[in-house]
Amino acid sequence: MSESSEVDVIVSEVGPRDGLQSIHRAMPTAVKIKWIESLAAAGLVEIEVGSFVHPKLLPQMADADEVVRAARKLDGVKVLALAPNFKGAERALGAGVNVITMPVSASRAHSQSNVRMTPEEAVEDVRRVRQMIDAQDQPVGLEVGISTAFGCSIQGDVPEEYVMQLAVALAEAGVDSIGLSDSVGYANPTQVKRMFKQLREEIGVKAGAAHFHNTRGQGLANVVAALDVGVTTFDASQGGIGGCPYAPGATGNIVTEDLVFLLEAMGLRTGINLEKLIIARAIISEGLPGQEIYGHVPEAGLPKNFAYAGARKLAEVV
Amino acid sequence: MSESSEVDVIVSEVGPRDGLQSIHRAMPTAVKIKWIESLAAAGLVEIEVGSFVHPKLLPQMADADEVVRAARKLDGVKVLALAPNFKGAERALGAGVNVITMPVSASRAHSQSNVRMTPEEAVEDVRRVRQMIDAQDQPVGLEVGISTAFGCSIQGDVPEEYVMQLAVALAEAGVDSIGLSDSVGYANPTQVKRMFKQLREEIGVKAGAAHFHNTRGQGLANVVAALDVGVTTFDASQGGIGGCPYAPGATGNIVTEDLVFLLEAMGLRTGINLEKLIIARAIISEGLPGQEIYGHVPEAGLPKNFAYAGARKLAEVV
Repeated sequence: MSESSEVDVIVSEVGPRDGLQSIHRAMPTAVKIKWIESLAAAGLVEIEVGSFVHPKLLPQMADADEVVRAARKLDGVKVLALAPNFKGAERALGAGVNVITMPVSASRAHSQSNVRMTPEEAVEDVRRVRQMIDAQDQPVGLEVGISTAFGCSIQGDVPEEYVMQLAVALAEAGVDSIGLSDSVGYANPTQVKRMFKQLREEIGVKAGAAHFHNTRGQGLANVVAALDVGVTTFDASQGGIGGCPYAPGATGNIVTEDLVFLLEAMGLRTGINLEKLIIARAIISEGLPGQEIYGHVPEAGLPKNFAYAGARKLAEVV
Repeated sequence: MSESSEVDVIVSEVGPRDGLQSIHRAMPTAVKIKWIESLAAAGLVEIEVGSFVHPKLLPQMADADEVVRAARKLDGVKVLALAPNFKGAERALGAGVNVITMPVSASRAHSQSNVRMTPEEAVEDVRRVRQMIDAQDQPVGLEVGISTAFGCSIQGDVPEEYVMQLAVALAEAGVDSIGLSDSVGYANPTQVKRMFKQLREEIGVKAGAAHFHNTRGQGLANVVAALDVGVTTFDASQGGIGGCPYAPGATGNIVTEDLVFLLEAMGLRTGINLEKLIIARAIISEGLPGQEIYGHVPEAGLPKNFAYAGARKLAEVV
């Protein structure tokens, strides 16, 4: 975290993908685009805007192509989209994404139910996607979040050494950045520290984002642990939308608003304006009337003495 | 945290005091007692059962005397009660509490509105309570949580050096244990680490509990930071009841259920049985029908591979 970089931590918004994919109704395309524009206006520089999964499986993601094209017009925004397999990656590439994200599950049971492949088959799929990317002209990134890295609600424990083997195999297959995802809200801070430290030792600068779910209310606690071992990119979802299908009623991803507050309050610059971010929330209700959204900071407001990390750093310099 | 002690971290339940005092209806005395008994049955060894504030100000605490007497019959439970001033401490002592807790606010504005004293006058009050305790036969503890230690919703910033001065003055006045309270949900993990570390440097083993509110969703994140600098006692409220009057709609204290899950998952023994703790929740609704209660773990359930810290430690030994 150098003094000269503009941000210390990247908050990667996954609401339009991870959030919306688990809501059975579809948000109208125009509202999705408006929401993404508002998120960008609030200062988010990484947004996962959709998933190139088969439209029969997730009709609410059928407009991914159109959403990607609209998002690509936004200045300074890195547009990510998820592709569950080679076919999806082909479509994502055609739509013009900046980064393709692929889930590879460390749980054999979850991998079969999620992408109908073994983890090893998924790694081979990722390798072919890398080759496809390299065979065309555009510089497109390839990122993988290792799902169920901290445990799985189908098989229970997921061996940590297997997660690391998978990370090494993915790095070798040409993935730019490999993160760890707590898909079902099983992670705890001790495990988070141990595993992200180990990940860094195994794959160096290719160690990527932390993706936490707040299913058991432990999301921000896990963020604090991950920060401690040098993680600098965190996925989050505006309004905490999403939610794990295995935990009915539980909130989904960590809430972007509460995460940004945490980081800025800790003195870590995110480049995000919280007031504008809170304004963007309203668009979720516009596109999905009656949808429950979460977040403490939007409800309680900012503390009377709140100051952004950048403002404080400037004040310290002066 | 020695291997021989039965617990690594003490979870101090404040729901029957901090939770119930901010709910305007009164929980019937018999239900309060039943609730406290259930909390004890779940393994809680420290429970703040009421407040000896004037019954005209908080009628829902008017039965503090009866509740203390009932709680004192529970084996192995340390019974705490809050006293806002000397008069209240006199009543608490008469009722037979094990520990008197007194709030001393580091914010002059909050101190006046809360106890109608300056912080310095509050310290003198505490000193007189110590003398009263020492003048009688029973061994009774005296603890202070410094309110608004991390900021105040009336005056904004609270100077950290003043918080430390207050801690030193309280230690000198004979308080056994002095903790820091984030009464309004302003604290962040960086500040928590810095201040608890400083507190330990200033007053050594008299450095006491962390009392966090979850107003902005940062409660457990702050716990992780506090653990990192050696804090071993945490206040929490079952179902997260309570709530800061300055943040309408926001949840109150950190949720006992989610805190116990965090600690046990991290490998820190609390001595608390989560299944029994979750059963005790139902009594809140019995005594206060329709009351909103919070908590992620009770809703999502325990992970498939969950094991208590003690069980894992035993397994590691074998």
